[in-house]
Amino acid sequence: MLVNRRDIEIEWGDCDAAGIVFYPRYFAMFDASTAYLLEKATGMKKIAWTKAFGVIGTPMVDTSAKFIIPSRYGDVITIETTAGEVRRSSFDIEHRVLKGDAVAIVARETRVWAGKDPENPDRIKGFPIPDAVAAALKG
Amino acid sequence: MLVNRRDIEIEWGDCDAAGIVFYPRYFAMFDASTAYLLEKATGMKKIAWTKAFGVIGTPMVDTSAKFIIPSRYGDVITIETTAGEVRRSSFDIEHRVLKGDAVAIVARETRVWAGKDPENPDRIKGFPIPDAVAAALKG
Amino acid sequence: MLVNRRDIEIEWGDCDAAGIVFYPRYFAMFDASTAYLLEKATGMKKIAWTKAFGVIGTPMVDTSAKFIIPSRYGDVITIETTAGEVRRSSFDIEHRVLKGDAVAIVARETRVWAGKDPENPDRIKGFPIPDAVAAALKG
Amino acid sequence: MLVNRRDIEIEWGDCDAAGIVFYPRYFAMFDASTAYLLEKATGMKKIAWTKAFGVIGTPMVDTSAKFIIPSRYGDVITIETTAGEVRRSSFDIEHRVLKGDAVAIVARETRVWAGKDPENPDRIKGFPIPDAVAAALKG
Repeated sequence: MLVNRRDIEIEWGDCDAAGIVFYPRYFAMFDASTAYLLEKATGMKKIAWTKAFGVIGTPMVDTSAKFIIPSRYGDVITIETTAGEVRRSSFDIEHRVLKGDAVAIVARETRVWAGKDPENPDRIKGFPIPDAVAAALKG
Repeated sequence: MLVNRRDIEIEWGDCDAAGIVFYPRYFAMFDASTAYLLEKATGMKKIAWTKAFGVIGTPMVDTSAKFIIPSRYGDVITIETTAGEVRRSSFDIEHRVLKGDAVAIVARETRVWAGKDPENPDRIKGFPIPDAVAAALKG
Repeated sequence: MLVNRRDIEIEWGDCDAAGIVFYPRYFAMFDASTAYLLEKATGMKKIAWTKAFGVIGTPMVDTSAKFIIPSRYGDVITIETTAGEVRRSSFDIEHRVLKGDAVAIVARETRVWAGKDPENPDRIKGFPIPDAVAAALKG
Repeated sequence: MLVNRRDIEIEWGDCDAAGIVFYPRYFAMFDASTAYLLEKATGMKKIAWTKAFGVIGTPMVDTSAKFIIPSRYGDVITIETTAGEVRRSSFDIEHRVLKGDAVAIVARETRVWAGKDPENPDRIKGFPIPDAVAAALKG
């Protein structure tokens, strides 16, 4: 299974007045982790793979997160990101935030492989995920 | 039922390179909307009600959001926030983002009514939600 | 003189672990205040005036801020924004943040009235600020 | 001269609808770079050196930045951070953002070495910068 694993040091500006990470910041970290996973799966930066596959990106449809252990300024967390189910034109992503051996957060996303609707370029629609990308995501 | 309803004009800095709101920004908006709902339920700003009730706040345990219609710079959205189930020491919050009559996002939160653990002040634990607050949230 | 004046209630997520506004957040507020001033000066939302004038926007060249009084969660600040010097293709903006009668922050920006370089569409260059916009900014 | 040098890959969420970094994001990056420089100068994380020296931190008094070259999603920038003048209870910081060999941004900060005013714990005041810290900053 393809995994993206990265360490993040919590910065002062990630934290709120209670001294713990302001949770919307985690979603920004997760979004970047998903981008890194897709970079691994396609072998290209997003700016290149969107052009190569003629799509605009992978907009978020649905996300959730369960917060188990808070983190503070100076803590180093590890985000492990993998694909879950990969369907025809949408796919799931799972993130685990680890502090040492403990699971601090589990999160899930559903995204669409989306391009411009040829019948109405102002709209976007799902397109079939290329087989090579689906295979790479599944690892 | 107690409702907090507010209009937000989407700013340039809320949007990403695709020209739509970067979804972590919505969670920051939802967090503030929950704060405004609690302000209505307690009749006090957070800084006052945390002191009055001897707690530290309402940390997030679990949240999810379903993104239906994207928003862009200059759009005005309405966020409607209500309490869902109110339990002994935790409660649910529901947000609906409206663009005109259309529902653009639905989101849900579970939060804990939390204070310092008297047996270990470095930890926090759930405390019973005061009856008056529970009643006000339920409206 | 054209002025944009708006009140902002400081939200939990605007603050850092010291309980005061994380200063990069002020720059996001200032950016939006400048957008509102230009909206007043042109009588159009940015998405409309950039089209009407054939430009891409007003990128920041230089900014500075002097922080005098900190603000905290729940504080309401007023941001007053005016144009300073308006030159051929660039202009200055001044922001004053007020807490009651006290000046909490003074900030300054220099921005360019910028469009795509016709000789190289990958680059941007300054264009003459339309007389009507310059006159409106000066009030 | 003590230098903190770090590479940052620009993430999707750092960019605005024009596809370039939303400039307030740079100030968040600079704030973290200053924290890393102070970590080097003191040999401790901020949470430790504030305790060790009995202060609360180094609040920003004045900052400015000159934006020369924009950056986009996927770009890797280098931030070089050094101390400028170190005075009795305040000091200057300089940041240079490099893209390859080109200077993309230059920024400057003035910060105060601040603690609680013993005569009024609700206020903060400047304290003398410890000699060892001043010497380390100057390298």
